[in-house]
Amino acid sequence: MPALQFQLQQTNENSKARAGKITTDHGEIETPMFMPVGTIGSVKAVTQQQLYNVVGAQIILGNTYHLYLRPGLEVLEAANGLHNFNGWHKPMLTDSGGYQVFSLAASRKITEEGVMFQSHIDGSRHLFTPEKVMDIERIIGADIMMVFDECPPYPSEYKYAKDSMALTHRWLDRCFQHFNNTPDKYGYAQSLFPIVQGGTYEDLRIASCQYIAGKNAAGNAIGGLSVGEPIEMMYDFTALCCEQLPEDKLRYLMGVGTPWNILECIHLGIDMFDCVMPTRNGRNGMLFTTNGVINIKNKKWEKDFSVIDDGLLNEVSSYYSKAYLRHLFVAGEILGLQLASVHNLSFYLWLVSEARKQILLSNFVSWKNQILPVIQKRF
Amino acid sequence: MPALQFQLQQTNENSKARAGKITTDHGEIETPMFMPVGTIGSVKAVTQQQLYNVVGAQIILGNTYHLYLRPGLEVLEAANGLHNFNGWHKPMLTDSGGYQVFSLAASRKITEEGVMFQSHIDGSRHLFTPEKVMDIERIIGADIMMVFDECPPYPSEYKYAKDSMALTHRWLDRCFQHFNNTPDKYGYAQSLFPIVQGGTYEDLRIASCQYIAGKNAAGNAIGGLSVGEPIEMMYDFTALCCEQLPEDKLRYLMGVGTPWNILECIHLGIDMFDCVMPTRNGRNGMLFTTNGVINIKNKKWEKDFSVIDDGLLNEVSSYYSKAYLRHLFVAGEILGLQLASVHNLSFYLWLVSEARKQILLSNFVSWKNQILPVIQKRF
Repeated sequence: MPALQFQLQQTNENSKARAGKITTDHGEIETPMFMPVGTIGSVKAVTQQQLYNVVGAQIILGNTYHLYLRPGLEVLEAANGLHNFNGWHKPMLTDSGGYQVFSLAASRKITEEGVMFQSHIDGSRHLFTPEKVMDIERIIGADIMMVFDECPPYPSEYKYAKDSMALTHRWLDRCFQHFNNTPDKYGYAQSLFPIVQGGTYEDLRIASCQYIAGKNAAGNAIGGLSVGEPIEMMYDFTALCCEQLPEDKLRYLMGVGTPWNILECIHLGIDMFDCVMPTRNGRNGMLFTTNGVINIKNKKWEKDFSVIDDGLLNEVSSYYSKAYLRHLFVAGEILGLQLASVHNLSFYLWLVSEARKQILLSNFVSWKNQILPVIQKRF
Repeated sequence: MPALQFQLQQTNENSKARAGKITTDHGEIETPMFMPVGTIGSVKAVTQQQLYNVVGAQIILGNTYHLYLRPGLEVLEAANGLHNFNGWHKPMLTDSGGYQVFSLAASRKITEEGVMFQSHIDGSRHLFTPEKVMDIERIIGADIMMVFDECPPYPSEYKYAKDSMALTHRWLDRCFQHFNNTPDKYGYAQSLFPIVQGGTYEDLRIASCQYIAGKNAAGNAIGGLSVGEPIEMMYDFTALCCEQLPEDKLRYLMGVGTPWNILECIHLGIDMFDCVMPTRNGRNGMLFTTNGVINIKNKKWEKDFSVIDDGLLNEVSSYYSKAYLRHLFVAGEILGLQLASVHNLSFYLWLVSEARKQILLSNFVSWKNQILPVIQKRF
């Protein structure tokens, strides 16, 4: 089975931004790219048809921990994997549960062997080891699997961050060993991406970048950022990691972020992003648009019959009015959640595809400087 | 402005079932037809694009009482009516609030003048008179407006039903007088349909049919059924009203019902239906399919990867599996509500269009007898 391929297509002189192309057995992905998050096998409030045809998603993300609990491995295996189960036939990526080591800190215990989770649903206990996570991700069947890591909180003491990184590296070796010893499960190639950790310590981040680069994977992820540290620190460590990681491999910054975070990190050399923000904030009535940020629940939109976003030509953003969407939120209608989610994802996908276009034109930095104040404006 | 036209196209010898065509300024409607209910200006959990392209809705219904409260008349008027506000550019019908006289019985007071409602949202008091309801429905801008009536509960004493009917008739006259004295508001024709009442008393129903038929409206509605009476009684009174109401006018049975209720009532001579059942029951996991009724939350569907309904060729029913839809319900994902609602509405619209096809083939009764046991089967 040929593994995933990454081809670097264009770089710019005054920026580390890159345009590239990923080839998988479920199709191609143009980078920079953004992955909508489909935690439990569904991008919340968005149909697969909308992801294909309105949002224009190229790849979506599933969460290993959540999918393991529901629908569970028996169902996913019987379905021949998540693609067949949920009807998303383009590429998919699964995280590893490593982020839940951070986000569910109150209900898990870390040992050398792995992490004992207590289910947030029924309190049952589940041991995630690097080997088991590889088995789970094989069964889910994502095109891109992520290694099992420990994502330490911010701030962490130097010693904690260093020990945690060392553990993550030992788990990394176990992940790759087990991954290499197990076959692709459903007749298409699955690839494994390692994850840089090291907290907010330069020497640790550099060491971690070097260690994970040694795996020679098609893509390298940066974890443990966007976990509460100041934004400038996030940029600094992203820049540091981008400098350390090989240029001919994909760079994936996990869990980031706002539209402006994404543009800045594309500038620093990142190719791949995922974040729950467009859907989660959308469900709370916060809209990202080509004209700025809107709280659609605000009274000021009550009689504003202009479309949600005149800069996006799709069946949601340039069809429904701000006044109608506000009404749906005020009246508690489910359709409000749907339209806001589809719109925000459309905006994110537009943003990264526009960034790509500007990189190909060698115009990324001047475009970024022009658009940043526009999309950050608040109404 | 030419008013709505109804053209009877086909009748069958062994049935009162009819096929017809309605012409409005927002397009044609083929009958028998079913109207998805868009209570507050949104068919719950369904996008307008899905209504157009997947469900195949020809007309939707809005609720005057709910739209009056939210978004309110000021917004609807500023939007130039509900069609422009919600982006549904095919025909629309508004009820009158008469059903809320029944359903909100605990928070309203009836007088000769009208009904004083106490808002279910903030407790504020609102007087609905026949004249005011006509004004509200003009502002909402539906193609078909309904008269303001009292919908008495079941059972009602003879004297209550008779007095209530008389009140409904006096309100009917006031509605028509006010309607005729006010112009179409947005450059297209609005029509007013009267409503038969009379409880479950034959002489009252006959008297009411005759009274409302005297208005010579393009369509006549039957109200006050499906409010808790035995199903055979509902059929008997529907049959009685159909016999009494003119054959060359539309017959609209309000608030009915299950798929089998609808087929039986088409057989009795009804052309128009509306009901919250497909969306409400869908949100509770009850699916109507061409193979029978399914509770999708049931464990038995956990690994059933067959499509939701192989009899319906659309992007939901014949795309997603039962196992996936069950998973969405079990995991509490919003997408489950969306898919179930779209599917159930697609089934209802398929059912009435298939009924029409069979009427045109003069084969309605034999088709109905064949399909009824199939679609009523429970899994």
